[in-house]
Amino acid sequence: MTLETLSENRSFGGTQGVYRHKSQATGTDMTFAVYLPPDAERGPVPVLWYLSGLTCTHENAMTKAGAQQLAAEAGIALIFPDTSPRGEGVANDEAYDLGQGAGFYVNATEDPWKPHFRMWDYVVDELPGVVFDSFPLDREAQGITGHSMGGHGALTIAMTHPDRYRSVSAFSPIANPTESDWGRKQFSAYLGEDRTTWRPHDATLLMVERGYPGEILIDQGADDQFLDLLKPESLAQAMAARRQPGWLRMQPGYDHSYWFVQTFMADHVLWHAERLA
Amino acid sequence: MTLETLSENRSFGGTQGVYRHKSQATGTDMTFAVYLPPDAERGPVPVLWYLSGLTCTHENAMTKAGAQQLAAEAGIALIFPDTSPRGEGVANDEAYDLGQGAGFYVNATEDPWKPHFRMWDYVVDELPGVVFDSFPLDREAQGITGHSMGGHGALTIAMTHPDRYRSVSAFSPIANPTESDWGRKQFSAYLGEDRTTWRPHDATLLMVERGYPGEILIDQGADDQFLDLLKPESLAQAMAARRQPGWLRMQPGYDHSYWFVQTFMADHVLWHAERLA
Repeated sequence: MTLETLSENRSFGGTQGVYRHKSQATGTDMTFAVYLPPDAERGPVPVLWYLSGLTCTHENAMTKAGAQQLAAEAGIALIFPDTSPRGEGVANDEAYDLGQGAGFYVNATEDPWKPHFRMWDYVVDELPGVVFDSFPLDREAQGITGHSMGGHGALTIAMTHPDRYRSVSAFSPIANPTESDWGRKQFSAYLGEDRTTWRPHDATLLMVERGYPGEILIDQGADDQFLDLLKPESLAQAMAARRQPGWLRMQPGYDHSYWFVQTFMADHVLWHAERLA
Repeated sequence: MTLETLSENRSFGGTQGVYRHKSQATGTDMTFAVYLPPDAERGPVPVLWYLSGLTCTHENAMTKAGAQQLAAEAGIALIFPDTSPRGEGVANDEAYDLGQGAGFYVNATEDPWKPHFRMWDYVVDELPGVVFDSFPLDREAQGITGHSMGGHGALTIAMTHPDRYRSVSAFSPIANPTESDWGRKQFSAYLGEDRTTWRPHDATLLMVERGYPGEILIDQGADDQFLDLLKPESLAQAMAARRQPGWLRMQPGYDHSYWFVQTFMADHVLWHAERLA
């Protein structure tokens, strides 16, 4: 497996790198970012996966989430995957919320998406193999978070694989996609009309069915312009009904932007660092 | 108005006092506790009301919640009212959850309760008059919290009078009493069978109808033995659906006891102190 280094920069005593590799899962080149804290010079460090939202690449959170200083202090690494396969020959759609930049962290089974849109396998299986082979990371200390579509990915992945992800949090996740226009459209396209294939990709339904063995932290802006699509109330009820350990914080005045994410990033990095220590 | 001092003790540089007075609201003698922090020697301080749960008097939280040190550091006073009128000539019931020790913070309209069980008026109107006349407290800086039945009281009172209570929190509140055996039984007895009179005393219904203009902090033990009676999932959904600013924290491993309350008391005292400063 060959990893191409696109850039590496010193950041808060550690290294912010951007890398490219040929993905077997997606059949395309994939780009991702890794932040290694200073502690990584002395041995493997815990890992926090950050899954991004619609329209994002590996770059948005890397540059706008303000997480590196906190990760340096906490001694954990950050990994920022892309949100979909990209490039010529990869299916796309004119809408911002379908196709490239909108992989929704599922394995597509329907044409024209199925040849490349396998972001579940990419994030859950292939990319971990790549980064654990290439960087001083502790495979037994992984946490996962994300924003919006990435919060959806973080929650669904963590609830499906609690053995791999010892901590989970989310910023304004798409919380009940099977009941939202952020979800039904994409699941129909990627997974087809059999809704039983959608269920493993809905955080609210997974919360009802199985929950998560650790605590969950969710921050949601009360002035988020997409609340009707995110549906935090469905997940809130499911979490409380299950007695799911965790915190759900409705943050007044905050919208859906990275200004919101960066405001609460310190809490999330600490949340994961404490649980991965 | 005559206030009888039952005891006063130095505590963390301030004073823990217990007082008795003749209540016009309940038509009985009522006992309450006040903790004054050291800052009260230099002028009026903010006030945090703590409403207790079923079977409690003024004494339980005063002795078991561990709030005095935190209040001393934060410079806020604590007030612990009783949970019902008491004494001979006051109606009672053999059950622990009706009658004396179980006032539910309502004004009873039904016999045999209506002559004395007027805890809403007592806590909201009469006792504030007493304490603001007697102690160096800032009437413009009041917050309210409570546990279980007292969490129910805190939430319903704060949502009804947000002008008076600038901060609110609750520990494991009875969150949806009109749908719980902790609620229906008592409301039937105290308020009668016309359920429209119950609505102002249900935190979930008030959340749907009006919410609270500030942030709300709620802590709930995930291993609380009374979860089916407390119904946090109803309030969780209503809070998220309203986009109510606030935090709902499901705390794993904690039950309904004061061991739970004292564990998170620091967070609540700070929560109020920040908002009342």
